Formats: sequence, C-alpha cells, structure tokens
Amino acid sequence: KKIIIAMKQYLSLHNHASSSETSPVGPNYAMSNGGGGAGASISTHLLDLLEEPIPGVGTYDDFHTIDWVREKCKDRERHRKVTHHLISDTTAQKTPPALAGVIDIAADWLNDLKEGVCLSAMWFNHEQCCWDSNETTFAERDKCPQWKTWAELILGQAEGPGSYIMNYFMFTFWALSFAFLAVSLVKVFAPYACGSGIPEIKTILSGFIIRGYLGKWTLMIKTITLVLAVASGLSLGKEGPLVHVACCCGNIFSYLFPKYSKNEAKKREVLSAASAAGVSVAFGAPIGGVLFSLEEVSYYFPLKTLWRSFFAALVAAFVLRSINPFGNSRLVLFYVEYHTPWYLFELFPFILLGVFGGLWGAFFIRANIAWCRRRKSTRFGKYPVLEVITVAAITAIVAFPNPYTRQNTSELIKELFTDCGPLESSQLCQYRSQMNGSQAYPAGSDAAAAPGVYSAMWQLSLALVFKIIMTIFTFGLKVPSGLFIPSMAIGAIAGRIVGIAVEQLAYYHHDWFLFREWCEVGADCITPGLYAMVGAAACLGGVTRMTVSLVVIVFELTGGLEYIVPLMAAVMTSKWVGDAFGREGIYEAHIRLNGSPSLDAKEEFPHPTLAREVMRPRGNDPPLAVLTQDDMTLAELQSIISQTSCNGFPVIVSKESQRLVGFALRRDITIAIENARRKQEGIMLNSRVYFTQHAPTLPADSPRPLKLRSILDMSPFTVTDHTPMEIVVDIFRKLGLRQCLVTHNGRLLGIITKKDILRHMAQMANQDPESIMFN
Amino acid sequence: KKIIIAMKQYLSLHNHASSSETSPVGPNYAMSNGGGGAGASISTHLLDLLEEPIPGVGTYDDFHTIDWVREKCKDRERHRKVTHHLISDTTAQKTPPALAGVIDIAADWLNDLKEGVCLSAMWFNHEQCCWDSNETTFAERDKCPQWKTWAELILGQAEGPGSYIMNYFMFTFWALSFAFLAVSLVKVFAPYACGSGIPEIKTILSGFIIRGYLGKWTLMIKTITLVLAVASGLSLGKEGPLVHVACCCGNIFSYLFPKYSKNEAKKREVLSAASAAGVSVAFGAPIGGVLFSLEEVSYYFPLKTLWRSFFAALVAAFVLRSINPFGNSRLVLFYVEYHTPWYLFELFPFILLGVFGGLWGAFFIRANIAWCRRRKSTRFGKYPVLEVITVAAITAIVAFPNPYTRQNTSELIKELFTDCGPLESSQLCQYRSQMNGSQAYPAGSDAAAAPGVYSAMWQLSLALVFKIIMTIFTFGLKVPSGLFIPSMAIGAIAGRIVGIAVEQLAYYHHDWFLFREWCEVGADCITPGLYAMVGAAACLGGVTRMTVSLVVIVFELTGGLEYIVPLMAAVMTSKWVGDAFGREGIYEAHIRLNGSPSLDAKEEFPHPTLAREVMRPRGNDPPLAVLTQDDMTLAELQSIISQTSCNGFPVIVSKESQRLVGFALRRDITIAIENARRKQEGIMLNSRVYFTQHAPTLPADSPRPLKLRSILDMSPFTVTDHTPMEIVVDIFRKLGLRQCLVTHNGRLLGIITKKDILRHMAQMANQDPESIMFN
Repeated sequence: KKIIIAMKQYLSLHNHASSSETSPVGPNYAMSNGGGGAGASISTHLLDLLEEPIPGVGTYDDFHTIDWVREKCKDRERHRKVTHHLISDTTAQKTPPALAGVIDIAADWLNDLKEGVCLSAMWFNHEQCCWDSNETTFAERDKCPQWKTWAELILGQAEGPGSYIMNYFMFTFWALSFAFLAVSLVKVFAPYACGSGIPEIKTILSGFIIRGYLGKWTLMIKTITLVLAVASGLSLGKEGPLVHVACCCGNIFSYLFPKYSKNEAKKREVLSAASAAGVSVAFGAPIGGVLFSLEEVSYYFPLKTLWRSFFAALVAAFVLRSINPFGNSRLVLFYVEYHTPWYLFELFPFILLGVFGGLWGAFFIRANIAWCRRRKSTRFGKYPVLEVITVAAITAIVAFPNPYTRQNTSELIKELFTDCGPLESSQLCQYRSQMNGSQAYPAGSDAAAAPGVYSAMWQLSLALVFKIIMTIFTFGLKVPSGLFIPSMAIGAIAGRIVGIAVEQLAYYHHDWFLFREWCEVGADCITPGLYAMVGAAACLGGVTRMTVSLVVIVFELTGGLEYIVPLMAAVMTSKWVGDAFGREGIYEAHIRLNGSPSLDAKEEFPHPTLAREVMRPRGNDPPLAVLTQDDMTLAELQSIISQTSCNGFPVIVSKESQRLVGFALRRDITIAIENARRKQEGIMLNSRVYFTQHAPTLPADSPRPLKLRSILDMSPFTVTDHTPMEIVVDIFRKLGLRQCLVTHNGRLLGIITKKDILRHMAQMANQDPESIMFN
Repeated sequence: KKIIIAMKQYLSLHNHASSSETSPVGPNYAMSNGGGGAGASISTHLLDLLEEPIPGVGTYDDFHTIDWVREKCKDRERHRKVTHHLISDTTAQKTPPALAGVIDIAADWLNDLKEGVCLSAMWFNHEQCCWDSNETTFAERDKCPQWKTWAELILGQAEGPGSYIMNYFMFTFWALSFAFLAVSLVKVFAPYACGSGIPEIKTILSGFIIRGYLGKWTLMIKTITLVLAVASGLSLGKEGPLVHVACCCGNIFSYLFPKYSKNEAKKREVLSAASAAGVSVAFGAPIGGVLFSLEEVSYYFPLKTLWRSFFAALVAAFVLRSINPFGNSRLVLFYVEYHTPWYLFELFPFILLGVFGGLWGAFFIRANIAWCRRRKSTRFGKYPVLEVITVAAITAIVAFPNPYTRQNTSELIKELFTDCGPLESSQLCQYRSQMNGSQAYPAGSDAAAAPGVYSAMWQLSLALVFKIIMTIFTFGLKVPSGLFIPSMAIGAIAGRIVGIAVEQLAYYHHDWFLFREWCEVGADCITPGLYAMVGAAACLGGVTRMTVSLVVIVFELTGGLEYIVPLMAAVMTSKWVGDAFGREGIYEAHIRLNGSPSLDAKEEFPHPTLAREVMRPRGNDPPLAVLTQDDMTLAELQSIISQTSCNGFPVIVSKESQRLVGFALRRDITIAIENARRKQEGIMLNSRVYFTQHAPTLPADSPRPLKLRSILDMSPFTVTDHTPMEIVVDIFRKLGLRQCLVTHNGRLLGIITKKDILRHMAQMANQDPESIMFN
C-alpha cells in the first residue's frame, strides 16, 4: 500500500510540475513553492515585482466553489495576450469510444466466464467462440462444441442435477470474485471511482472543486472495476460510469492545453462536452448525449458549448461506429425496428406505463436515499467490501435459476425490445400459430400465447420483483454502478408484460369496440416490444426526471419517429407522477445527500424573503469582518484573518463611511503577504497595508507599506438589502457567484455566500441548515 | 380603408377592455383610463390609496425593452397571492397544426390552379382530382380526364405551341394575381405580416415590445397571404412564417390567462413554446422544434420552458398526425427511406457539400442584406407592391419552361430526396438498365445514366442558378416569406447533382482504389437522394448557422440514425465556412438591419473596456439626471422629466453624498403624478416629493407632500466603474436587464443602458453607433 501512496504522490507532483496552478496538494504547497521559487531571485526592482502576478493567486482550495465571473475574465485576459490558435478539444473525445469498446468486450468476456470457457481460445466470449461452429441452426447455435460450461469442464457432464449445482456454484463464485476484486480495487486505489459519478460531475460542473475526482487514477480504476462490476452480475449498468470515464478523459486531455487546464470555467466547458460524448458512446445516441449534457448535467451551458458538445458527440459516434463493438454496424446499443404503427387506443396502456414509471421512480429514490443515509450514519457503512460481497452473493444466488436474471441485463433489454419475428426462438415468442407450424397468418401477427409465453411471464414477474429490490440496494455501493440499465430493465419487463397482456386481450376480444376497427384477426396490431421500450423510457424518466433528452435517446435507439408520441406521453406522465411525490431526481437527491453546495438550476426559490434577512451578520452576530483601504497595519490584517474563517473580506473606504471599495479573498491575501515577506525587505508587523492606487501619506519613521491592490477585486457584485432573494438566487445561479455583498444606500451592510443561500433554502424547507453542508 | 382603421381601433379597444395592462395604444391612453376609472371614487383614505397599486405602473411603451427581473418578481408576487391552479398553456398549441393543415391544403389548391382546374370539383387540387381516375399506371396517373389545363379549357387543345403559350400566360397571370393580392393585403391590413417573422420574434423574445406584431390581425392576414405567396410561385417557403403564425396563436391564447397576459416574461415563455410548436408543425419534427426554439429563437430559456416546449411540440405533432395533411400517415414533410449505408469515402463529397452550403450562406447573407439595405435607403422601397409584382413576374416567366422550377418547391425537394426505385418514373431516374427493361441488376442499383438524367442535370443546374438569384431578391419582400424551403431546395439541387456525378464516377470507375473495396458492379453503393438531403442541410445551415437543431430536424425527416454522421459533418463544415466570412446568420443580420436593441446571446464581447468607459455621462456630457430622495419639489421633478428623455432616473440620498437609494422609471413617475393629482388633494407644484418611508419634516405652511416610494425600485442593479464590460454584457444578457447603475466606492457615477452597450459594441466594431438603433 505504501507503493500506491508513493505513486499517487508522484502523480500529484507530476501534475504539479506541469501546471502549478492546479496542484492537488492544497494551498500551502503551492504557496511555498511559488514563494520559494521566486525567493532566490530577490531583486531591487521591488515595485516591478509587486505589479507582476503573484504565483498561486487565483487558484482554489479543494472542496471550494469557483468564481465563474473571475474565471471568465481570466480567459478573456488570456485571449488578449496570446494570438489565438485553434486548439481542438476533441482529441479528448476519441478516447472514450475506445475505452467504451474495451469495456464492452471485456465485460462480455468476463460475464461469459461465469458460465464457461472457450476451449479453442480462452479469450473468446461465448458468441465469438461459437462463430466458427458448424451448427448453423438458430436453436443449436449456442451449443457449439468449443464452448464448455464449468460443469462439462470439471465434472465432465453437461446434464443432470450435479452439473446444475456445479454451474450454479461456479456462477456464484465468479460473481463474488469479480465483486470482491472490484470493491477492493476501488477501496485501495481510488475511492472516487465508486458510484455512478453523475451527481459528483453535476456538482463539479456547477463550480465545485473536488481534486482527483477526474484524475488519471480514477479513470484507470473506474475502467477496470466497471468491467468487473458489470461482470459480477450486480444490478447495475455501465452507462452512468461511462459518463464519468469520459469526463476523466476530457479532464486529463485538458491538461495538455493551458487554455483549459488553467481556467476552471473553460475546463467545465470541456467537461460538459465530454459528458455529452460519454452518453453518445454509452447509448450510441449523439443528439441524446448533447441534450443529456444540457438538461441533466450541465450548469452553465453557453451556446458555444452546445456546438462543442455536438462536435464531441459526432466524433465519439464516428469513432464508435469504426470500432463497431455491438457487431451490428449500427451505432446503437438496442437497435430495434418495428413494422406496425401504433393506435390511439394504445395511448392508454402507454400512459399507464408512465404512471408505473413515475411510481417506481419516486419509490426508488425514497428507498435508495433512505438506505444510503442509513449506510452513512450507522456502523454498517464501515464495511463496504462486506456489503458489496453480500449483495453480490444474494444477487448471484437468486439470479441464477431464472434465465431472465441470469443473463446480461443489456441482453435482457434487447430481447424484451425485440419484436417476435419468424426467426425468433426465445420462449417469449412461443405462440400457437408458430408452434403448429401453420402459416395461416403471417409471422409476427397476433396469436394465442403458448405455454412458453405464460411461463416467461411468470419468470419475468419474478425478475421484475428481484430487479426492483436489488437495484435499491445496489445503487450507492462502493463499486462503479450506473442506474440507466437496471431502470430500463425494470421498465422493459413491466412494459413487455403489459404488452403481451394487451396483445392477448386484443386477440381474444378482437370484436370489442376498442379493437374492432383496427385489429382484425391475424393482423399484427400490438407490438409487445414497443411496450417494453415505452416502459423502459418511463422508468428511466421516473428515476432521473429527464424528459427531452430521454425521449431523444430512446428515439435514437429505435430510429422510429412514429413512436415519439407514445414515448413523449409516457415520459411526461412519468415525470408528473414522480414529481407529485418529490421534485428531485435521483441525482439531485444524491447531491443533497452528499451535501455539496450546489444550487440546482431547476428548483425554484418560492419564498418572499429579502436579501436583508439572509445576509450575515444578522441580529446578534458579531459585526462583519471588513478591511479598510488604507489605514490597517499588517498585524491588524493578520489578526482579522486568523480570527475569522470566511473566504474573503470586503474592503471599505473607512469605518465611518462604510462605502465599499472591493473584495479580497483570504487565500489571495495569505499568499500575497507570504510572497511580500520573501521578496520585499522592510515588511514588518506594523507595516501599513493599503489597497489604493497610491500609498497613503505616512509618518517619516513608519516601515515600508505593503500594497495589495493587485489582489483586490475591484468589481464585487453588490445587491441592495431590499433585493428579493429570488433575484439574488437567480444572480447566483446564472452568473455562478461565490458571494455577493449587500449594501444599503451605498453603505456596506453584509455579505451573502452560496452557503448562506443553501442554508436559508434548507431553513425555509424546514430542514436542519447544518445538515446540508459538504461532509 | 377607413373601415379598416375603425376595425383596428375596435380590436384595440377590445383588447384593451380584456386586459388594460397590455393596451396597444400607448401610455397616455392607459394612464388616462387608469386615472379616470379610479378618479370617480375619491375617498378620504388617502394613505390607503397611496399604498394600493397605481394602474398603469409596471407596463411598457411600444418599442421598449422589458425588464426581465421585474417581470419575474411580478410573477412570484402573483404566485404568492393566488392559489396555484393548473392552467395549461397548451390549448394554444392546438391551433397552429390546424392552421398549418389549412395552409397546406389551400396552397396546394391555389398552386395547381395556376395550371388548370378540376372539372368534376373545382375545390380539388390536381392530385385529389385524379384520385378517382381509372388510369392506374404511374405514367398516366397525372393525365386524368377530369383535370383540364387552361389551354384545354380555353382553346380546347392540349398540345401544340398555342396551348403552351396559353398555359404559360395563365401560369404567369395567376402568379401575378396571387402576388398582387398578397402584397396588397399585407400593405393595407397588417404591415407586420410580411417577411419570415423569425428575426422579429427573436427580438421580441429577447425582451423587446412590438405591439401588434403577434396580434389577431397579423395572424389572419399572415395566414391568408402566406397561402397566396406560396401559390404565386415566388421563391419562398411557408416554414418560417408558420413559426410566426404559431407565436401569434400562442400570444392570443395567452390573453385568456392573466398569468401570461399580464406578465411579459411569462408571455415570452409561452412564445418560446409556441415557436417550438411552429417548427414541429412545419416540418413534423417535434424534437427539432424544441431545439430550434432553444438554439435559434429563444433568449431566455429556463429548463421549465424546455419541458413546456417539449409538451407543446408533442401536442402539435399529435394533432398534426390526426389531421394528416401530407396524406402519408407520417408526421414529416419529406419522408424518405434509404436502404444502403454510406461509406467512409463519401464523407469527402459530403464535406464538399458543406463547403458549398457555407459559401452559399455567406454569399446569400451579404447579397440579401445589401439588397435590403438598398431597399430601405433608396426610393425603391417606397413601392413594395410594384417590387413584389416585378419579382413575381420574373419568377413566373423564367420558372415556367423548366419543369423543376415550375413545380412546387416542396415537391421538388421531395423528388430530389427520394431515391430511385423501380416505381419511380421521373426523368431523374432514367438509367440504362431500367430503360432496357433488363433485370440483370436489382432495381436501384447503380447504372449508366440515360439521356434523361443528363437533361435533368442541365435543367437542375439552370434551376439552381435561378433559385439562387431569385431567393436573394425575394427574401425581404413585403409578403410572408420563409427561407427554409428555398435554401433547402438550392442545397438539394446541388446535392443531387453531386450525388449523380459520384454515382456515375463509381459506375464507370468501379475499379478505382476508392471504390474497389465496397462498390461492386451492379451494387447500389451511392444514394443520390442522400446527397440531396445532406446538401439541403448544409445550405440551410449556411444561411441560418443552426447546428444541432438543424441536424435533428433533418434527422427527424428521414428517421435514419445512420446518416447522422454525414449530416453532422456537412452542417459543421457549412457553419465553419460560413463563419469565416461573417459570424452572423441571416436572422441576426436582419435584426441588425432592423436596428432592434437586441443583445445576441451567441456573439462574444471581446474588448477589454471597463464599465467606466461605456457609462453615461462621459467626458463633456451634461451631468446625470438624478433625483434626490426627499428634497425635491414636484416642479423640480417635472422639469427634470421634461428636460431629459431617458427612461428612468436614479434616486440618491443627497447631492452631496451621491449614495444610491434606488431607481424610478420615467413612465411610472408620470403615471404616479397624474394619479396623485386626480386622487389626492393639495398636490401643488411646490409640493415636496419624497421616496423615503416617512415624510421629511417640512415647514408648517408647506403643501401636502407626495410620496412616491411605491414606484421606487429599491433593488437596482449596480456595478462598479472598474467592472470589465464583458461581465456587464454577461449580466445584461443573462438577467435581461434594461439598465444598470455604475458606482465608485459606493457613490453613483453613471448609468449603462442596453442601448449604450449596443452603441459601444458598434463603436468597437468600427460602425456608426447611430446607425444601429431601431427605426
């Protein structure tokens, strides 16, 4: 473990060497380095030195919020200084598709390893192993001689209870091994690699600094453990983590370009584009990816980012198409084609699926958050490895007997989406007409269900219950875990069940007034696969509360514009029903659970309070710590800094007038003082500190004054004390402020920070304001 | 004409009666009404009356910008007062599809009227007339006995030069009649009904007030003249105006709900949704509509509006599907299905088409703007009717001989998009293999072009030149005119020509290394229709500079996800090439031409100026007109108001301290004084005016003071004089401000209005700052 720490330190140092401003080791290090590096070259041109930028000024501490306005100004400054040359940020977008391809292939192989191995070539998965097989009939295709189940390999027999138990045991064994490996890797190497990553990325994009969350280390470990976690059979998907992986790639590549690495706001534009590329790659849905980034992830989304995301998604989609991991020369994960239109009457079951999706979403969010809260607050959370192994064991043991839970969840969804055709051999498609071999009706037409369908319905119902329960306990485990695939699976199962029910209803009661007009005997009027798709969209919508982006993603999966109205209807219903039980989606709920200071762009601020009531100091608080522009000594300044903990101090003209001059950040002041002590001679504790352009007139014997104008923000944001808080919240959200000063008739009254606003919002919602801070 | 004015006045009055705050007759009327209505009930509860809202305060003059922040606050206020009940804004979205259906059908009928009439039923268009015909072969389908051309009807002969000239004459005659009728209706009844409407809607959505632009009258006239203009054969489309029509519907329906009609910011949310519904209806592309509203039209687009637009587009798409105007049970205008994939090599011609689109867009914008500027500045613009008739005559005379320009532009695009199948009888699909009747190769496969294709290529080239020239002169005429269809037609023609060229190249040189691997003899490797589609997207992209929304719209037209990479490549190339010649799209260029004070959200502000340099007063300007909070008399106030023309006045504590208290709008002050004169006794010219909470202590003999605190905005936006202008511009854009006060160390220095910023931006771009104002 020591080696790992050493490696991490090396990485940090390396990072630091390449860009001192983004050092992951905190302010002290950067400061001493900045000071030390320059300290050797003390020169007599003190005034010139004072005007040059102080190293370290303008960077941020870990777990702090960035100042969007300042970052944007820095970018403009840079633009003016350098001649503009085209730096493409899209090279970063070529890696996610490649990684996605690797993850897909590796996860498939590991997943099949749970059932058996390919004797001819160990590194082939089940499908690849059987490609060369001579068995060409569909039923026999899976039973090729090269592919051996574990029972065949160890016991030498393929049938019988013994071999079943052997397979069962090996399945569970591999699942547990993968899960153990995944959680151990995460725990030891990169604790940030766990979970879906989307809540944290939302927090980062909203301007929060979490160092190392998007680092190389996280990327490597997340990629590896994602493969293991998916292969372990846990009820999780790889789509959410892929967004995290794509953002890591974007972040790492942004270090190559100082334009992006040195500016936190520009970096976030790259991350927005990277998250679009992530979804584009995960689902093969480039437009859906852009909209996902816009609707769900991003906080600050200028139109330029829209084009960038679009371009990133284009490149990602193109590279993915070249890699062709799904082996169908399609971009998309679940490509389906339906051949029948839908009928107006069918809107009713679709909306019903929407209601189910909304209810599931609301239930899931409550249950999952309650469980995660319990994990955080009780001793239970201290044993993440044990928890993962327990969940993995239960999942494997319960999943094996049921074919719908044993198989890969993506494949299950694909099977549920696919309509029954003449070549379809699965149990779900055992209808009477096909069984009899009679070709009275064209293939795919509605028919009476055979026993196979009924048993499939039972198994699907059991799988539904199983998936619902396991997903609640799985999301939030200390392994990479996405929510898209399990949610879609739950919706697809429910949808397929409803679809088959409606189909049978239409078959047996085709003379009902509902069906009479459009559903003749032998016609193919109901498509159960479409119901599965609508159900999947509804459930995903209920959990994430996405609307437009979700419809576009699912629409890109199928490519059928005709089904956009059913999809829209189901997704809107699901959102309405879900919102009735709680406004926030799972990602917002997890952000709140994490306690990050993030102002949700969607939530409205409905209270009639004024800035006066939110600002500090209030009532009995001690007076606001302020600096005066030209009559403080260094000792006074340092005592103010040491006595308070706030991030910055307003600078006023004088204690009497209280008129505001500017704002100085604590971190900048500390760095500047340290810097001056090293570079300038004659700086003593009774040196006068001034923020004005010219030094104040001082007695003759006083020591050399210290000019701090260069770190003074001359354009702090101010609002009057009468400003309604809704406007203040709006300003904070839209401009990405960290703090705002409150004035009354031109005099400084107080300060409002983002945390004050969050505390106030929690207070108004009758929550404990102290419970919501980052921890 | 008197009747019309009377009708318009009636409409205004009617409007006014239903909501006094949105009266279209300007401030004086609203003011006198507000004062007059309440004047009858003078009561002794003067103080109570003072606290109650003054009618008319909080409304806007025509051609003024709204204050987004104030409007949003008003909405919150209303929210708090009324119990929330669900008001659906989507009823408004049911009308656009219905209108769109009517427009489609009427325009088809009128268009066919230019060529002939249906004897069996006058109100049938050509296609409907021939539905009942017994001729079922494809070639003969168009020649049904019921349909008579004008030559047949008048001269009694269908062939020969006489009948050709007769048809030619009647074609031109009808075109001129329709054009004359259209321009006359627009000129007499609703001058706002001309043009595409999208630039003005963008201006309105950015917060500008243009009364009557979205009124009933505009709606009616625009609908009628749109049909006539399309039928007249001018090189224009109906898609842009449909967005205007949809916004009119949205605006009119919003009057039914005070929530929307009384709040300019909420009304703009409805309009954003309506524009999405408009595009959704125009192209049958609901998601594209939402994105169009987001990317191209809207200024302030909260996520709530995204969901609303989504819902509006859903309803619109659904209603459109029920109406089924395209007669193909599809949502979309140009439904196409391609069966072959594209190959990597083809990206090269696609990008070439993108370059063409970008060049065309840049050329069109320059030429069209130059022409429109000349129209505005010379006497030529005084005769709009003559201009329209001249253009219509030239169009009709040149268009008739060429079958590709004679036919409806939408149908031309459809034909160009469609791939050659075995049933296709058009000249474009005359290939050798089909002609010989030999079925050696499957239908649709590449083959040597027959003379029909070559002559079609010639005609298409001529049509391309014709369309390019006519579109430049047509867009901006005083008739409703959209740009989507002509641009797409130009791109489709160019694309089809390129596509056929590549196809022939591949046929004759199928052993080239480029084609060898994937293009065998007899295979269908090149789809000229796809080239047409890519070309259409590229040209539309070059003109409008849309990216994501355009790809989504075209993608929804075809429903083929596979072709999204070619589309994206072409559209991005087109945008880059276009941007190299000028950053703004046609709509921004027209907004600038109109001189509306609109801050484009896309354009960046790259200059390093500070707020100090932009604010007024500057240098030798007269000092800023300010009000003091408690030591002015009514006479002084009125003289300040009459001597200045600015929209509002900062209120300060006193002349000495210059500390800012708030901001009072000129309109509000005028209304409040008028109101007080009517309601309060003892208000004289030497009455003291005060903005403080309590009246100042006055000498005993002084007249009754006038309290104006209720109209004082206590939370004006302030920035310091050191604030970089890029931040100020950002604040103005994101918060939708009208003005912002500039302070230095807490003292008021000056004011920056939106117009100051626009003037400054024009100055920095070396333009005449006075040329850009609204005129």
